[in-house]
Amino acid sequence: MRTRFQQGLDELKSKLLAMGGMAENAVELAVRAYRERVPELCQKVFQNEERINRAEHTIDELALDLLAMQQPMAVDLRFILAVIKSNADLERVGDQAVNIAQRVMDLIALPQVDLAADIPQMASMSAHMIRQALEAFVSANAELAQQVLEMDDTVDRMNQDVFLAMDKTMRESPAYIRQALDTIIIARNLERVADHATNIAEDVIFWVRGADVRHHLAEQATPNDR
Amino acid sequence: MRTRFQQGLDELKSKLLAMGGMAENAVELAVRAYRERVPELCQKVFQNEERINRAEHTIDELALDLLAMQQPMAVDLRFILAVIKSNADLERVGDQAVNIAQRVMDLIALPQVDLAADIPQMASMSAHMIRQALEAFVSANAELAQQVLEMDDTVDRMNQDVFLAMDKTMRESPAYIRQALDTIIIARNLERVADHATNIAEDVIFWVRGADVRHHLAEQATPNDR
Repeated sequence: MRTRFQQGLDELKSKLLAMGGMAENAVELAVRAYRERVPELCQKVFQNEERINRAEHTIDELALDLLAMQQPMAVDLRFILAVIKSNADLERVGDQAVNIAQRVMDLIALPQVDLAADIPQMASMSAHMIRQALEAFVSANAELAQQVLEMDDTVDRMNQDVFLAMDKTMRESPAYIRQALDTIIIARNLERVADHATNIAEDVIFWVRGADVRHHLAEQATPNDR
Repeated sequence: MRTRFQQGLDELKSKLLAMGGMAENAVELAVRAYRERVPELCQKVFQNEERINRAEHTIDELALDLLAMQQPMAVDLRFILAVIKSNADLERVGDQAVNIAQRVMDLIALPQVDLAADIPQMASMSAHMIRQALEAFVSANAELAQQVLEMDDTVDRMNQDVFLAMDKTMRESPAYIRQALDTIIIARNLERVADHATNIAEDVIFWVRGADVRHHLAEQATPNDR
């Protein structure tokens, strides 16, 4: 039979996944707004921010309740810590989506130009990293998390490519300076999304790999009834 | 007599302050490198990053040890949670310093120009916010923390001003596009530093204001021997 504490851990995990879905969705909405130049989609991103912030607080409160409920084993403590940290990262993914949507609003008000920056490709890679980091969380799979860390270099390179291409565009076509500028900021925001995915993947590794080592010590120090 | 647990809490607080000092110092170094155009100062920022990352892990481990040591009261749980979150923010302040230093390296390789962006002023405001958020932490002062939240709007406005001024510079002086671009990125990084200070201030408020309310509930639910 699962204890109330174990049920709480399951709830914590499923709430974190739901939060991850919201954050990923916000990024996807913002990038769809970029592709389709639809201000209403930006508005949706702005509206969703509050929901994401509330979800963050709910998860923090649940984590606190679980910590107060009983003396958790080290493996559970590390899990709860990983949730708390990943939770904060997901909330900031939501912030990045808002930043992107703000730049998209700026872009929509300007003449449309076709710039040499593959924002949708960068977005799909960053969103994939978030999804995979969360999958690693669900399955306690450190190897899956490790792959996320490796993808981060690719996104960094893509961001650097956008920076250099837009720098060139600005020189060659001064009329498009503002559009190129917005594009640079959007690329940086997507690079941050990838950074947050990387942080989450690191948290998973910290939880999964650290667990075995510290588990035993904690059992000796604080006998636990689970 | 202070218990081992209480001593641990004190140690956690002082380690967080030391971490805050390192992060603030990294930002100050990066901005000094910007003002004085000294690549060696950038190198120092790059070298310090690893130390800051190690400090983050030490604080996380100490927080875990404290959580495993005994069943903390709700007020202490909230404090430990606030430390864990602020710790992650301070580590990212260190990352921002690295990002700034990278842009400064780029700037140093380009002809020097005097641009209409008051980076030192933005930096001093952001650093001040970090310092004040940490002071609020030490003194458990929610009002001091509240002031930090209010300063964030000023830094956001400064960042927006830099963006618009540099957009104008690029149009008027295409020869300075790259320098203006670097300046925009540096301003955004400083704005993130201010965001991290804001997050820390919010954590202080969450800890201090939440404490009284939840303390009582937790004492009822989980009698504690402190």
